[in-house]
Amino acid sequence: MKFCSNCAQPVSLSVPAGDHLPRFVCAACGTIHYETPRIIAGCVIEHEGKLLLCKRAIEPRHGFWTTPAGFMENGESVQHAAAREAMEEALAHVRIGSLLAIVNVIRAHQVHIMFRATLIEPSFGIGPESLESRLYAEEEIPWPEIAFLSVEFGLRRYLEDRRLGREQLHFRDIDWRDGKAILTDGHSQ
Amino acid sequence: MKFCSNCAQPVSLSVPAGDHLPRFVCAACGTIHYETPRIIAGCVIEHEGKLLLCKRAIEPRHGFWTTPAGFMENGESVQHAAAREAMEEALAHVRIGSLLAIVNVIRAHQVHIMFRATLIEPSFGIGPESLESRLYAEEEIPWPEIAFLSVEFGLRRYLEDRRLGREQLHFRDIDWRDGKAILTDGHSQ
Repeated sequence: MKFCSNCAQPVSLSVPAGDHLPRFVCAACGTIHYETPRIIAGCVIEHEGKLLLCKRAIEPRHGFWTTPAGFMENGESVQHAAAREAMEEALAHVRIGSLLAIVNVIRAHQVHIMFRATLIEPSFGIGPESLESRLYAEEEIPWPEIAFLSVEFGLRRYLEDRRLGREQLHFRDIDWRDGKAILTDGHSQ
Repeated sequence: MKFCSNCAQPVSLSVPAGDHLPRFVCAACGTIHYETPRIIAGCVIEHEGKLLLCKRAIEPRHGFWTTPAGFMENGESVQHAAAREAMEEALAHVRIGSLLAIVNVIRAHQVHIMFRATLIEPSFGIGPESLESRLYAEEEIPWPEIAFLSVEFGLRRYLEDRRLGREQLHFRDIDWRDGKAILTDGHSQ
């Protein structure tokens, strides 16, 4: 952020009175521009015992596999965002089920919220952000080609829970230090 | 948003190519400014069977009672944000427990994420955004003076679960139509 979106004058980083963190502040009109984490909503979609994955046609992680997921939009619920992403990326009409995982991706300023889901109709396809869509049996999942740590976490917890006949909610923090991912798990519930 | 925060030229609302929603777009430098929902993190704090509430010293809902809650910041987890708000609003050092509720406050472009919590030390106080802090027994809670529908939802589900000896996760959407709140509940888990 270089300029104030309210008055077009330059902004600078400073800690406003009564605050504890530096913000982009406009000295001209006094506007404080808060930047806060964004929600990525997604779902692990099961159909006939297999999981639906999409090969990414966009960066980051072009060519890697993911569950449908993306930025939540204003005017929708997290659940609606997860279902919309399934439609956009895999042309899949899904029923959103229980909450599977909340992953804090701290350096990226993101919170990934992942639900369990099933296909309402037994059809899916390839959305504009995907190169390919495929149902994978558990033993076929291409683990080294999974696009994101949060997606791998969601898939592994999903499969573990399924083996144990339960549907828990799982928590993970992902941070980076010296170029290495630091993973911290919370208590599942 | 009136001006581009990247180049200070005026922005206008239009649907970018390949997108489906209007965004603030800068014709001069091409930047698309996405606006997405913000997370409000909070917690219901129990101590010796009572719940800790704060009387708000700020708008909106000045003078009404709330659980500690506020905007999640970049660089923290949702859980950390909830604990930080407890410290800021009630000078309470809390241990964050299970997830209590996710409330989509759709028109406000907010997702409220509320945890259960307990006091690590048996002390609390009055933060700069509060007029008063108090432990309430269940039968003392001032329901008509609770600040927000999402807080009332969290408190009621908390107390219900406690009576039943369980800790579930609860979902609600809050929207407004013709000035009336429309409440839609999801399946608890």
